[in-house]
Amino acid sequence: MKYELFYWPSIQGRGEFVRLALEAAGADYVDVAREDMQAMLGLLEDPGLARPPFAPPFLRAGRRIIAQTANILHFLGPRLGLAPESGATRLWLHQLQLTVEDLLVDVHETHHPAGAALYYEDQMPEAKRRALYFTMERGPELLGYFERVLARNTSGRGYMAGRSLTYVDLSMFQIMAGLRYAFPAMMTRLDPSLPGLTALHERVARHPAVAAYLQSDRRIAFNEDGIFRRYPELDG
Amino acid sequence: MKYELFYWPSIQGRGEFVRLALEAAGADYVDVAREDMQAMLGLLEDPGLARPPFAPPFLRAGRRIIAQTANILHFLGPRLGLAPESGATRLWLHQLQLTVEDLLVDVHETHHPAGAALYYEDQMPEAKRRALYFTMERGPELLGYFERVLARNTSGRGYMAGRSLTYVDLSMFQIMAGLRYAFPAMMTRLDPSLPGLTALHERVARHPAVAAYLQSDRRIAFNEDGIFRRYPELDG
Repeated sequence: MKYELFYWPSIQGRGEFVRLALEAAGADYVDVAREDMQAMLGLLEDPGLARPPFAPPFLRAGRRIIAQTANILHFLGPRLGLAPESGATRLWLHQLQLTVEDLLVDVHETHHPAGAALYYEDQMPEAKRRALYFTMERGPELLGYFERVLARNTSGRGYMAGRSLTYVDLSMFQIMAGLRYAFPAMMTRLDPSLPGLTALHERVARHPAVAAYLQSDRRIAFNEDGIFRRYPELDG
Repeated sequence: MKYELFYWPSIQGRGEFVRLALEAAGADYVDVAREDMQAMLGLLEDPGLARPPFAPPFLRAGRRIIAQTANILHFLGPRLGLAPESGATRLWLHQLQLTVEDLLVDVHETHHPAGAALYYEDQMPEAKRRALYFTMERGPELLGYFERVLARNTSGRGYMAGRSLTYVDLSMFQIMAGLRYAFPAMMTRLDPSLPGLTALHERVARHPAVAAYLQSDRRIAFNEDGIFRRYPELDG
């Protein structure tokens, strides 16, 4: 199956969680909007779609169009060998991915607490206040949770669930990389309490297909248009 | 199967989306924390759980504990006759539910843009600014999307997907009820553009099991501790 991913072409954003899964599995895919932005906008506004996506990312697989990051990964997981076919573990992985999504919402809110329609520069006082909540409470709380999940997985030490690499491990890599980019001071403070996630981040980075992807020009660099933004005044 | 739902006992919140599904299907369930709060807190902090939930709501079904509202509904859907067993429509329903979740996040942010750890009264200026974004942009945008989805479902007119009632229809009922409670002025303005959702809200309210539930003391009233809060200064 050839997959078509549709996502904003200049940021990692939520699309990166899908890109990482496709890359790690060596899937045959096209990152459509990086070559043809109009194709993505056309689909978003196509009145003929019976099941329209609300927003990118979305994936075209044959005749199906599937949106919502966690939902795309839930669909792709078994097809890419990054999740079991069915059963309790597949649902548990999805539950973890939805908690990753919760964290992403909170990260985005640190620079856009007044709303996504305004520039960061127009909401800096609010952003500083919200970021303090994130770096002191919400961030540590969520990372602590993921560290506990990792420690309690006794069936396959070093993975978030089960005995082998899943898309949730790839997502945790991206979370660690993104938080280290955006909140280096927070992460320096928290790192000693996150030995499992730190090791997982390193192991995923060394995965051959992932390592090759990270070195390629297909990996967009972190930047201040994405979810993880380095604004030193928000870090702490 | 007897289900045990665990959620905060004094608010509708996210748990209400699960309650509505269980009630509409006439499922055998207990809303545990309404009688035994300690049982819920004990599970949240139980170091022996290999797959701990991050937060309520969560559902116990036999030996499994399943968290994340949309994930719980994805699990329950086919078991309660509120979603097909598998295939494209089941995934499409889940995608819609995740977009419902996006809307809930935005509603919550209207009263807690500085963070969930602070009282509303301590973040009112930020809340007014965020609420303006919600009532003028984000809310209309998301409701317009759901209205389009409803209009494009030609296989079963009046339902969000397919030919019969699903948990997404129940969730849309709750969204409409909640927004009318919290943002009556916004909804009066938007109502003429939402004929499908308005009719869906009325039809679900008349569903015998739902109607009985809404009249019972199992239905917690909207209040200013939940997601949908009536703060007139935020409406518009």
